[in-house]
Amino acid sequence: MKERTTGRLSDLVEGLHERERDDHSHATTSEDVPQSRRVFLARSSLLTLAIPGVGAALAACSPSGATRQDTTGQGAAADTSHGRAGRGIHNSDSRLDSAVLKPEHRPGTSATGSATQDAANVAYHRRAPELPALPSGNVQRLHFQAREAPVRIDDTTVVAAWTFEGDVPGPIVHTRVGDTVEITLTNDAVVPHSLDFHAAQINPKEAFKSVIKGQSLTFAFTPKYAGAFMYHCGTAPVLMHIGSGMFGAICVSPREPLPPAKDFVLVQSEFYLAGAANGTRASDYQKMLSTLPDVVCFNGRPNQYVKEPIRVKVGDRVRFWVVSAGPSHPCSFHVVGEQFDTVHLGSPPGNAIRGVQTFNVAPGGGMIFELVCDVAGEFPFVNHAFRHGQKGAIGLLVVE
Amino acid sequence: MKERTTGRLSDLVEGLHERERDDHSHATTSEDVPQSRRVFLARSSLLTLAIPGVGAALAACSPSGATRQDTTGQGAAADTSHGRAGRGIHNSDSRLDSAVLKPEHRPGTSATGSATQDAANVAYHRRAPELPALPSGNVQRLHFQAREAPVRIDDTTVVAAWTFEGDVPGPIVHTRVGDTVEITLTNDAVVPHSLDFHAAQINPKEAFKSVIKGQSLTFAFTPKYAGAFMYHCGTAPVLMHIGSGMFGAICVSPREPLPPAKDFVLVQSEFYLAGAANGTRASDYQKMLSTLPDVVCFNGRPNQYVKEPIRVKVGDRVRFWVVSAGPSHPCSFHVVGEQFDTVHLGSPPGNAIRGVQTFNVAPGGGMIFELVCDVAGEFPFVNHAFRHGQKGAIGLLVVE
Amino acid sequence: MKERTTGRLSDLVEGLHERERDDHSHATTSEDVPQSRRVFLARSSLLTLAIPGVGAALAACSPSGATRQDTTGQGAAADTSHGRAGRGIHNSDSRLDSAVLKPEHRPGTSATGSATQDAANVAYHRRAPELPALPSGNVQRLHFQAREAPVRIDDTTVVAAWTFEGDVPGPIVHTRVGDTVEITLTNDAVVPHSLDFHAAQINPKEAFKSVIKGQSLTFAFTPKYAGAFMYHCGTAPVLMHIGSGMFGAICVSPREPLPPAKDFVLVQSEFYLAGAANGTRASDYQKMLSTLPDVVCFNGRPNQYVKEPIRVKVGDRVRFWVVSAGPSHPCSFHVVGEQFDTVHLGSPPGNAIRGVQTFNVAPGGGMIFELVCDVAGEFPFVNHAFRHGQKGAIGLLVVE
Repeated sequence: MKERTTGRLSDLVEGLHERERDDHSHATTSEDVPQSRRVFLARSSLLTLAIPGVGAALAACSPSGATRQDTTGQGAAADTSHGRAGRGIHNSDSRLDSAVLKPEHRPGTSATGSATQDAANVAYHRRAPELPALPSGNVQRLHFQAREAPVRIDDTTVVAAWTFEGDVPGPIVHTRVGDTVEITLTNDAVVPHSLDFHAAQINPKEAFKSVIKGQSLTFAFTPKYAGAFMYHCGTAPVLMHIGSGMFGAICVSPREPLPPAKDFVLVQSEFYLAGAANGTRASDYQKMLSTLPDVVCFNGRPNQYVKEPIRVKVGDRVRFWVVSAGPSHPCSFHVVGEQFDTVHLGSPPGNAIRGVQTFNVAPGGGMIFELVCDVAGEFPFVNHAFRHGQKGAIGLLVVE
Repeated sequence: MKERTTGRLSDLVEGLHERERDDHSHATTSEDVPQSRRVFLARSSLLTLAIPGVGAALAACSPSGATRQDTTGQGAAADTSHGRAGRGIHNSDSRLDSAVLKPEHRPGTSATGSATQDAANVAYHRRAPELPALPSGNVQRLHFQAREAPVRIDDTTVVAAWTFEGDVPGPIVHTRVGDTVEITLTNDAVVPHSLDFHAAQINPKEAFKSVIKGQSLTFAFTPKYAGAFMYHCGTAPVLMHIGSGMFGAICVSPREPLPPAKDFVLVQSEFYLAGAANGTRASDYQKMLSTLPDVVCFNGRPNQYVKEPIRVKVGDRVRFWVVSAGPSHPCSFHVVGEQFDTVHLGSPPGNAIRGVQTFNVAPGGGMIFELVCDVAGEFPFVNHAFRHGQKGAIGLLVVE
Repeated sequence: MKERTTGRLSDLVEGLHERERDDHSHATTSEDVPQSRRVFLARSSLLTLAIPGVGAALAACSPSGATRQDTTGQGAAADTSHGRAGRGIHNSDSRLDSAVLKPEHRPGTSATGSATQDAANVAYHRRAPELPALPSGNVQRLHFQAREAPVRIDDTTVVAAWTFEGDVPGPIVHTRVGDTVEITLTNDAVVPHSLDFHAAQINPKEAFKSVIKGQSLTFAFTPKYAGAFMYHCGTAPVLMHIGSGMFGAICVSPREPLPPAKDFVLVQSEFYLAGAANGTRASDYQKMLSTLPDVVCFNGRPNQYVKEPIRVKVGDRVRFWVVSAGPSHPCSFHVVGEQFDTVHLGSPPGNAIRGVQTFNVAPGGGMIFELVCDVAGEFPFVNHAFRHGQKGAIGLLVVE
């Protein structure tokens, strides 16, 4: 693992090793407005905000919470003293980065930085569901830029999103067991971000740590297991970062190729939306904590494969690499008019069950679903938990 | 597959191929009241209503939403233009059939047509949980009538339901891998309905399409896999049709019989209820989208097998064919005081795990749970997600 | 099975065999205040309260509900007449014990008896996550006392809990397939309680029945299957008793030992809290029925293993025995930066899948997750359903 520039601040579980010095000395008051972006960003990672649990009013986002100071640099050993918490029920991992509290946007939403800029001019585009071809060679080098961007998810809705590479979900990665993925994350966003690959066995304290605007971090890993794995930003509060759009899929093929098939990747995720500038809709942290999603969809757009279906031929084997990105809900994956001859609960090959109508993919998990298209027709694929399927987690597989 | 009368209107994913002509020309205003039932029904399938997402007031059901016109008949090829949507977040599959908007009942509920008629006189009856015997012969012909009916689910509650054959759930079907099921659906309800069998591998665009009042549709299928499968109405919005009572189970035995057992079928489902005419309770679409169920139960009645238990003998093997009809929640199936020696995650035989206390059956899915009654006693079976189990998903297995 | 003193009152599914005599003769009015504790407790089990479903106001806990009289003693055979229910939707198992309605505490919460006493002086302590060593011999005798107790779950929160042995969760039990566990439950709480072990195959009507204050019940069982099993109080309403803290884990090792590993037990559970006396927070039944939890955590304290991590060495195999106690939600268990080489879906050995990032443990269920610590670092383990993970279901595995 090599680092170009280490993110010296918050790591995956931000504040784990923090000790409080003065509960109020860094309170986010109006006097606390940073004098420069650099100072602001440095302070962003120092200041955090206690977020009360479910049902708390949005006013809970006011900067009255407890303040902590990151002392990670002072010692790697975990501090075993109990973290001091503010009033009410909250936890050390449910703090919202203070960057989110800037007066120019609604507190507690993703409408930060450039997320709402030029929103009216953002075009809709369908996300190609096809599994990308394996790259040549045994080492794949990737560069993801974390940045705020408006993303059009349907004709009437532009989401003020936090993204990898400007879209939700981020790029679909395809690699092979035993090959190496070297990934560089560069942060061009106001808020610190990081990159957690579920296909990697690696020390997250180093590889998955947060980087601030202008900085980069590079790490490499060699997947040990085949499967459909999630990646996501792991910066605290993780709920907010996944819920605002920072997730994607890495598909790992086994060394011995799976049977020939048409391979598609479906990443289910949720949006919890509130009004924001320029007619956009921003992801709302309080809604994530307290209510059902407004939209549940595959590959970032509600019903996109209803509007523009996935097309295959009679006789094709179809292999869906399904990832439940959440942040909170599973996918009860089902194809209307079909049955899966194989569902890989664990890593393929092996670990599969046969003859399945629907199976639950846990949030943060992935499974591979296979069927053979014996019959021509139009086969909707859905999240059969219909309170969610009804909100956009539906598409069409057309067999011609 | 043969059709007596094709349902020429909405198919499973109603409106997939629609193009809008005039956003307002068919708005469901008072001037829009049909002059005859025939005209009304034809228009019912033409008019649809955009339903905003979670948290929308019931007022959202007022006929101010976007209107679409079904042009399915104009071309089978999918329209790849993006569906135009109304204000706010909604999707092409979350529209409520305009028949539901008739002034004589509460908008957005199942209190349509005859659903509330003579409700006070409807008697309670326990649903027999026993798996029906396999019919003789290799072809089974069934006829389901879709109709509105009041269904008494306990002493004080009559639900204004949408049903197959007048009850919730619909009839339990038992067949065998390789045998043929020929099913005719006749619609005697105000709203279009359809029939989606999870045990069938068939083109849903034809077999599972909607039929209107007075029309029928016949299709046949030959199950390839054994298991406990759901069937349900697949007419949009599917959430509303399942949530209003239109579901059941088809149990498919393998060619080689499973070990002798006492076989029982348990279909878990949810009710989301609002007040309706004649003292009934109607299924409420907004509640389905936004809140927890009022009732969760097996075979359509809360606690019915507490009141009148399932009875077996010491030494019996008991096989529960468990289907989670939802529309939205899984079943964490558990038997108090017992452990499953076998849970068939996929199609039996094979695909089973041993020594299980509780396993999750995804909504839209089914699994088979087996145990051996070594001990006499009274063994509650429950959904161990107790916020739901507490609402009626509990019964008693008495071993004598 | 031997009983010291039989609990003669409510059994697991309280009120199953009840017949109503007079709907109002025992109404819990002010005139109905018991003259002595003994009389009160006897009446507590006789009186029950109908709890309406979701959305009911807390006022629903006022003593205006239907009243039933326990006639269990009058005949063991199940009464097959339909239970008579009060107005609205409720079920025979959703009644709150009337002891909970005493005027000195908030109705419908766990702030009963001594649950709030001396709360300010209760110290926080970390729950050791290590699997206890197997006891010597083939018979293990345990004695659990059911009692109300304030439990400090973090620096600012003391929960007025219902407990086994004064803590949440109750003691972790470790036994072996074929060995015998003999357990005595003594009730020192105001409310009747019971003890349901998922590792036991036994008649719950006798073994798991409720006992009242001062009484004891002893039963013994011999686990047939290895695995991570839940135990809990099964007194109606079960949702309230689990939700108030009465649960734990019994880990059953196979006769042939599993491969050497560092074994840890993680019991995930939820808190639904309301204000109570002495600055405590009490578990609130209406919140359990209607909303999301305030806290989700492992072993009873939010983020406790973030504050004081679990520590192992490079090269160790780590085996997590994960139990989802609920009362209502699953655990999507994941370790950041790692992958499970083995997840035992059913009883080990066998019934396992390989190469897993995240798997769903159903509420009321348990699974065993194994990984090998090839890499040094700090690996957060989480419930990857982040609306819940964010509320405290996170910890740290430090590999040194």
